[in-house]
Amino acid sequence: MKQILKVIKIGGKLIENEASLNSFLEDFVQLEGPKILVHGGGNKATEIAGKLGYETQMIDGRRITDKDSMEVITMVYGGLLNKNIAAKLQGRKQNAIGLCGADGRVVISKLREVKDIDYGYVGDIQKVNSGFIRSLLEQDIVPVFSAISCTEDGILLNTNGDSVASEIAIAMSAIFETQLYYCSEKKGVLTNIENENSVIPVLNSKKYKELVASKVITNGMLPKLHNCFQAIERGVSSVRLGDTGLLKNNSIHTKIVS
Amino acid sequence: MKQILKVIKIGGKLIENEASLNSFLEDFVQLEGPKILVHGGGNKATEIAGKLGYETQMIDGRRITDKDSMEVITMVYGGLLNKNIAAKLQGRKQNAIGLCGADGRVVISKLREVKDIDYGYVGDIQKVNSGFIRSLLEQDIVPVFSAISCTEDGILLNTNGDSVASEIAIAMSAIFETQLYYCSEKKGVLTNIENENSVIPVLNSKKYKELVASKVITNGMLPKLHNCFQAIERGVSSVRLGDTGLLKNNSIHTKIVS
Repeated sequence: MKQILKVIKIGGKLIENEASLNSFLEDFVQLEGPKILVHGGGNKATEIAGKLGYETQMIDGRRITDKDSMEVITMVYGGLLNKNIAAKLQGRKQNAIGLCGADGRVVISKLREVKDIDYGYVGDIQKVNSGFIRSLLEQDIVPVFSAISCTEDGILLNTNGDSVASEIAIAMSAIFETQLYYCSEKKGVLTNIENENSVIPVLNSKKYKELVASKVITNGMLPKLHNCFQAIERGVSSVRLGDTGLLKNNSIHTKIVS
Repeated sequence: MKQILKVIKIGGKLIENEASLNSFLEDFVQLEGPKILVHGGGNKATEIAGKLGYETQMIDGRRITDKDSMEVITMVYGGLLNKNIAAKLQGRKQNAIGLCGADGRVVISKLREVKDIDYGYVGDIQKVNSGFIRSLLEQDIVPVFSAISCTEDGILLNTNGDSVASEIAIAMSAIFETQLYYCSEKKGVLTNIENENSVIPVLNSKKYKELVASKVITNGMLPKLHNCFQAIERGVSSVRLGDTGLLKNNSIHTKIVS
């Protein structure tokens, strides 16, 4: 029987607010067994970019990562947030290491092909170095990933944090029984975005397609759920979305099933 | 016989200029055997701090690291420079990993005690995790260190890059025959700062004390040379200061001897 590995993605307001981040980390260090943390960036990058006088270019609600933006992302996600989370875990006696995709060739990607829109320095993940991650876990070190990948040619790329989490979970499934958790301030997938108690407890791919067709699930939830179903279909043993109560297994949340 | 390990510190203008950094990295990847890179920050942190509207406070020519400054240092040294160097090495087919002291508890420090002046978030190194560094070297991964350490309580601290290099070299001397190289745009220790050909080829501690007493060696060179002599006295097999020609063993430079 394979050992259980927990891969936890945190994002949204959870990471923007120091108090909620600290509270999450308190729960996180209590989790037993091998674990991996993946974090998004929240609004800090946009805030710093604004202060530096860089314009954030958006097309159809999606960020265009030009050279300046990638510099800010490397500073804020790869430096400020990532290193602070690693340090906060050390302060809680949990050995940890902050990583971007370049470190140990751990998340290798390809520059996204330009079709209609050139998203700039944005990567699609091609390969996760599960052997290197395993060597860290064997030393009881928690890998903490920022949402930055790297091409074979050494170009850093902005990468969807949900995809980083799912691709890592999928790769680690060859070695571990892997559980994937998406934690944010939301309690799960909602049937009504205005009502945070409208959580769907179990979501299968049939129901998912219906909800997409009827436009109940839209926008940012689409790529997130695509990642969830990819994970379930490619060997991850369980995928759940919810608030930090997820870590204690005591909250309403959404469970993804095939 | 112990295996040779090279610890190389780069700083100054070498790292500020993309072309000189690239040229250094070309030479660096050619070096055979296990190696470690430690980098300073150059003026990039001051430049970013200025753009963000943070005032850089100096007392007697030394930077006071307040909370804002530490944030910028974490972004610029720990993120931008560190991750870009790791990525550039990957692009040159050299596996590498960018680290600050919090990562794997690799460089643990103590907040500097306040005597006359409160330098703020500044650390003095207490412990280097040589076992973790060895595990990386055994996987043919080059550790790349930014000049940031971490307290046992998980506080990130600005730390002299020369000290990071010498303390790592000293700790690794228990395992390897360790060679320490300080690379910058200068050819070595000069008897006349105006004349870059006045390089002292061999500097022993007696001569060093004389040059300090006669004020030939002053300012920034004092802590750097203190680190050099510490390294030689505490087990490092050789210490050299020079420009990047050092890596090819074909340039004039200063060799430190006890």
